[in-house]
Amino acid sequence: MTFKAIVFDAYGTLYDIQSVAATTEEAFPGYGDIITQIWRIKQLEYTWLRSLMRRYEDFSVITSESLAYTIRALGLKHDAATFERIMDKYLHLDLYPDAKATLAALKGHKLAILSNGSTEMLNALVKNSGLDRVLNATISIDSQRIFKPAPDAYSLIEERLGVGPSEVLFVSSNPWDACGAKTFGLSVAWIERVTPEAMALACVKSDVVPPLTLFKALRTQMDELGATPDFRIQTLADLLELAK
Amino acid sequence: MTFKAIVFDAYGTLYDIQSVAATTEEAFPGYGDIITQIWRIKQLEYTWLRSLMRRYEDFSVITSESLAYTIRALGLKHDAATFERIMDKYLHLDLYPDAKATLAALKGHKLAILSNGSTEMLNALVKNSGLDRVLNATISIDSQRIFKPAPDAYSLIEERLGVGPSEVLFVSSNPWDACGAKTFGLSVAWIERVTPEAMALACVKSDVVPPLTLFKALRTQMDELGATPDFRIQTLADLLELAK
Repeated sequence: MTFKAIVFDAYGTLYDIQSVAATTEEAFPGYGDIITQIWRIKQLEYTWLRSLMRRYEDFSVITSESLAYTIRALGLKHDAATFERIMDKYLHLDLYPDAKATLAALKGHKLAILSNGSTEMLNALVKNSGLDRVLNATISIDSQRIFKPAPDAYSLIEERLGVGPSEVLFVSSNPWDACGAKTFGLSVAWIERVTPEAMALACVKSDVVPPLTLFKALRTQMDELGATPDFRIQTLADLLELAK
Repeated sequence: MTFKAIVFDAYGTLYDIQSVAATTEEAFPGYGDIITQIWRIKQLEYTWLRSLMRRYEDFSVITSESLAYTIRALGLKHDAATFERIMDKYLHLDLYPDAKATLAALKGHKLAILSNGSTEMLNALVKNSGLDRVLNATISIDSQRIFKPAPDAYSLIEERLGVGPSEVLFVSSNPWDACGAKTFGLSVAWIERVTPEAMALACVKSDVVPPLTLFKALRTQMDELGATPDFRIQTLADLLELAK
């Protein structure tokens, strides 16, 4: 099977959002990981809720509001400088280790990002990580004023790249995003970064189910949304086989 | 201030969804509470995601699919009879202790439920709990094929009760629902069942932040969605003062 374009989700797929944890841990010792997990869940919830409420705000506003929620809900206090330092890390997220080499090896296809991120956030992130040199386009859903998984978000791929849904491979580690793209009509490779076996093992190994395992359960297992991705892969590098 | 109609959210507001925990604990010893928490979060996520994907399925389908997800993500196995026993509990949820007396004392107002639940689920629940004798209407969002907090869901109140937004007090313990109703234009009383102080204390009291505290942090603290409910109350009985 050949695809004219390969389009990637950004947060959690090319970029490791968990890489914020060092910064949050420094700011709030003992809470670093937990903050990133609650923050991410609330960030996603707010994209969906604001879309449904028809009260769109761009992803930088939502990212800031969900961080404020997280700090407050955990009973922590912050000053403006700390808050800004954490927010700034979102513009300097680490790439997954195999991201750069995989994208380089996929040249010959049109390569793009389609992300909930605002145009400004994405441009900064892509430039800071050097991906601007390998991507043909960085597409923000901003112009549609509705977030993924709304069909209007995925329709930007054809609009911007001039490649129809049947010739696009969409890549995401986010189960809901993989389901949304599949439902829209794209071919989808879902990156399963935590296998069900690893998840089950983590639960069994502890008397109490550990908090981080629980949060991973909410974000890394395939959702029940009536859609099944075409491909299930473990790392970005597995794409090289699919895209041959 | 007087309101012609007082309209209640059902799940988590009049009915204690945590009352499923005895049934899930019996089915999966040690996992009872955790199942109810993950189940609830996924149930909500799926209502929002399917609404955005334009793939509406009614709340009984979503409740079943989110339960299947929860059991699988925790690495547990179930048989059909166990699954059905848990699902059936959703039609026999416990009322909050002050629900019946409060509704009885509010007679004189039009009283209704507006819920994401399907017509069939809600009718069973309302009948099994005896609320059919005090409610003027039980309104499911089913006919709109989109879930709260979409404006089309809240618009059913005027359509069914003939009472305009300015004369309705909407009551919910779900922060996102309170924000959605407020954004739509209703007056809103938000029931804050866990105070920020109690939440912060629960975090400090344990070396690791306990899992249930974390999940409560996701569901019981006011969201950052650009809306502020008119009233913040602690129990249903506090409505008697507001509705005078």
